[in-house]
Parts: sequence; structure tokens; C-alpha cells
Amino acid sequence: MKDKILIVGSGAIGGFYGGLLARQGADVSVVCRSDFQRVRRHGITIHSHSLSDWSFKPVQVLRQTEDYQDSADYIILCTKVIPDVQRADLIRGAVGKETAIVFIQNGIEIEQELLDAFPDNEIISGLAFICCNRIQLGTVDHLAYGHLALGNFPQGVSNKTRQLCTLFEQAGIACRATRDIVTARWQKNVWNAPFNPLSVLSGGLLTSDILSHQESLVCSIMLEVCGIAAATGHPLPEDIVGKNIASTYAMPPYKTSMLLDYQSGRPMETEAILGNTVRAGHRTNTSCPCLQTLYGLMKLRELQLSG
Amino acid sequence: MKDKILIVGSGAIGGFYGGLLARQGADVSVVCRSDFQRVRRHGITIHSHSLSDWSFKPVQVLRQTEDYQDSADYIILCTKVIPDVQRADLIRGAVGKETAIVFIQNGIEIEQELLDAFPDNEIISGLAFICCNRIQLGTVDHLAYGHLALGNFPQGVSNKTRQLCTLFEQAGIACRATRDIVTARWQKNVWNAPFNPLSVLSGGLLTSDILSHQESLVCSIMLEVCGIAAATGHPLPEDIVGKNIASTYAMPPYKTSMLLDYQSGRPMETEAILGNTVRAGHRTNTSCPCLQTLYGLMKLRELQLSG
Repeated sequence: MKDKILIVGSGAIGGFYGGLLARQGADVSVVCRSDFQRVRRHGITIHSHSLSDWSFKPVQVLRQTEDYQDSADYIILCTKVIPDVQRADLIRGAVGKETAIVFIQNGIEIEQELLDAFPDNEIISGLAFICCNRIQLGTVDHLAYGHLALGNFPQGVSNKTRQLCTLFEQAGIACRATRDIVTARWQKNVWNAPFNPLSVLSGGLLTSDILSHQESLVCSIMLEVCGIAAATGHPLPEDIVGKNIASTYAMPPYKTSMLLDYQSGRPMETEAILGNTVRAGHRTNTSCPCLQTLYGLMKLRELQLSG
Repeated sequence: MKDKILIVGSGAIGGFYGGLLARQGADVSVVCRSDFQRVRRHGITIHSHSLSDWSFKPVQVLRQTEDYQDSADYIILCTKVIPDVQRADLIRGAVGKETAIVFIQNGIEIEQELLDAFPDNEIISGLAFICCNRIQLGTVDHLAYGHLALGNFPQGVSNKTRQLCTLFEQAGIACRATRDIVTARWQKNVWNAPFNPLSVLSGGLLTSDILSHQESLVCSIMLEVCGIAAATGHPLPEDIVGKNIASTYAMPPYKTSMLLDYQSGRPMETEAILGNTVRAGHRTNTSCPCLQTLYGLMKLRELQLSG
């Protein structure tokens, strides 16, 4: 029987991963806002650097989850994590007894909110390692990478998680099932916490410029993230900072997602990436002055934008 | 006999304080660049919130110190302190045996360069506590405050320093002679080091917005400056952070000088205010992660502007 999957959010992440699942034969529907008309008429097109280009027509194209005419095996939440979006409210209309709630989103400590709202549902936390942009309504450009990590929150790997991993793997994307997705989320934040705010606060520099001119600052920030992760019970590998530095030097020059949001006038994931990290630092009495400075500056920058 | 004074730099600081001395009867000449024609023809006009408005015609209006046709008792350097301006070269042409070299400039550890270049001259270090802007060529707007602190470098108060203080006092401006101008310079930097970069990196916020939204960040940065000052042998009063916070709340909303420079596309005093502070921290093994983060960000911002 086909898996019934409802993608919430048809930006780059939702379009790309929803498209992969649809191509693999799953019954994929999509909830979208800004590109509703375009997706209803023409579906979503993915231009990929590594997989052949393809388009798909979602089974249902919806304005809100309440309109979903089926019982979802998986809801996959792919919106940005910003204070204005109440994630639980966004999906509640389509969450059934057997629905696994998946989210492929950035940030730290963003899981509990969904577990609290849906205590009887399976919560699958997902991380995407990908460079992709929605270049116009209904069109996603997949530039590099694409692999996923999935795991149940707070820990473990369920059969449903394994099954979703298998679907992604069959579609040609590496998907790792991990028993400790929270630690994986901290690992990803080691990169996100410095590069996202530095790209915005520098006025728009690429990752390569930031790293080559301020490597020691980047390392200091990464080490603070590692300290907080350890203090919350999720110690990271000792070589993680060195590996992140080396892999960023090896990456093509890259505009972070926060910079793209900033330059397009869209809200930024400041709280999910930076604010929650700093709050975890405070809660555990872990010193994080560099992160606090970046966070304070991002809040000032947001204040300035709103003024 | 009239004091012969050569003002180098006819921006807001040079125009205002040169104007005060001229009004008091001193023989004031001015070296200026961008507004040479305007000043030669019309002199400099000062609109003051507290003193009556006045204009003055410098005795000599010069393009460079080499053209000065006299023997200066005082050269008063009022340019910005930026890496592109070699301060010693700028004044060398008019430094005589008896010339006291005065500078009314922002920043930390900016004195030694001049003492090295002119080891036999008196070096008088000056600080201006003032809000003033050059609103157009040859016109200075004096918005608030105006008092000065003067002292010899590395320490002490000479007769010439006292005499200059008296001239300023007679012109209606409080001028304190201090035996420890280096400590006074650190005191002023307690305010400058946070507010100048925060105003630029926030995208242009006023001091009032910065303080009311990020008071604890401002305090952290101020405390780091105090730590470095103490480590270099210049401990500051214990209550200095609290007093700075209170006085900033009492100030009208204010655009920092660095923000004005940034918004006008002029070079900023990043090195004098922030870079030299961080370097003094490193030299004395004093932790200053917030300042390092701000400094790294300012360097990235400058890189972005130059790109």
C-alpha cells in the first residue's frame, strides 16, 4: 500500500523531499501558501545538480491541513521555524491517531513543542544537509548535497522512521536513521550557529570570505556550541570543529539560508538557531559570550528591520 | 602674545574647538582637505546649542602643514584615527622645536606613535565629550556637551597643557587637566567600544534603542573593556559601568560617530576604538570574547564594504 504523505510547506525543502517521495511512488499531497495557484496548476519542478530534473503533481494541493481528504501516514513539516508560525496549529488539522509527525527543520530544542501538542503521536525529527533554493514559485533548484538524518524524539528509531529512510534511499538520497537525533541536531548547529548570523551581520558575505578572514572567531563560536551541547547531555566528537572548518573550506562559496531570508526581507530563524542555543547555555550555566553577542546583534538587527 | 595654533583637520571637532580658540583671541590657522575652498572664502561657521552661533576666519587656511608660515605653539590634530592616515606624516611639516603636539581624537593606545615620531616634543593627549557634526562644508553643528580632558603623555600636566585648558575654559568650555590621560582614555572607551560597533552592526540603531533592548550585552562589553584597562595598569572606578548606563539612558537618542561615518561611506575608527582594545586584551592575556566578536564582525563588515 502506498504511503500517504502530507508535506506542509512547499519551499525548497518541502518541494525537494516531497518530490523525491512522489517520484518513488508515495501518495504525496502538499499544503502551500504563496505558490498555491502555481502548484495546483503545474505541480512542482525540481532542477537537480545530481539527480535528473523532474516535476511532480501532488495528489492534493491544499491551502491548509484541515482540507486534507485522507488519513496521513506521515506529515512532514518543512516550514521555517520562526516565532510567527505556530507549528502545532499548522498541522493539527491533519494529524490522525496513526500519523507520524516528521519535521525537516533547522534549529535546537524545537522538538518538545510538538511532543507536548501531540503526546500520543510518533515524533520524527529530521535534518537536511542540502543546498537548495526555491528560485521561483513552484520551482526548486537543488545545488549540492541532499542527505538526511532522521530519528525519533526524544530518541530511538521506530519502524516508521526506518520505512521513511528506505523511501528516501530508494529515491537516491542518503538517509541515515539515528538513535540520537538530538545530538545530530547539535552537530548541525555547530555550523549553523556561526555562519548564519555572521553572514547577515557582515552585510552579506559568503561562507568562504567569513572563514578565510575570521577563522578563529568561527572556531570560538563553534566551541561554545560544543560546550552547550555537552552541558545538555549531548557531547559532540572532539574533532567536530576541525572537521567543520575543513569541510567549509572544501565547500563552494555559499550564501547561508539566513542570509537569503534576510536579503529577501523574509523572517529569519534567529530564535531556532541562535536564541535556543543561548537559552540552553543559560539553563546549563555554560559560558557563551560570543553566541550571546551574535544573538544580541541579531535581535538589534531585527528591531532595526521592523522599525 | 597670542598663542599660535594650527588645527589639522577641519571636521566637526577641529572646526568647533578651533573656533573656540579663535573666538578667545588665539592666532588659529587650519589645515583642511575637502572644504579648503569653502573655508578659505567663508571661514567656518558654528551653530551651537549652548554658546551663541559664531563664525571665524582662520589666519591661514592651508592644504598641508608644510605650507604653514609661522612657528606653532600648538598643533592640534583633529582628524579621525584610521589606518590610511599617517598622523605623524600629516603634521611633520609644521612641528618645530617648541611645538606642543596635541590630539583630540578617539581611541586606545594611539599616543605612542606620535611620541616615537617626535620624541623631543611635548605630547598632549585630548578627549572631547561632545555631540557635534559637520553638517556641510565649513559648517559645524554643536548639538550637546563639549567638555574636554587634556593631559600629557605618558602622564602629567605641563604648563602648556594648563595654558591650553585655560584658553578653552575662557571660551566657555569645561576643560579638565588630568595627570593620567591614559586612564581617562580607557574610561571614554568604556562607552565607545560597545556603542560604536553595535550601532553599525545593528544596521543603524540609535543609542537609546541599543541600550533599551540589549542592556546586558552592553554591560558585558563594558566590563570587558574595564578588565583590559586594569590589566594594562589603568584600573577604572568600580561604578563606571553603572554610571555609563545611567548617563546613556539620560542622553537624547544619539547616532554614534562610527554610524555617521558608516552611513556616509567614510572609513570608520574600527582599529582605534576596537582593534587596539582587543590587541591590548591579547597582550595582557585578558579574556574579551564579546569585544573579539564585535571586532571580527566589524572587519567582516569592512571587507564587505570594500568588495
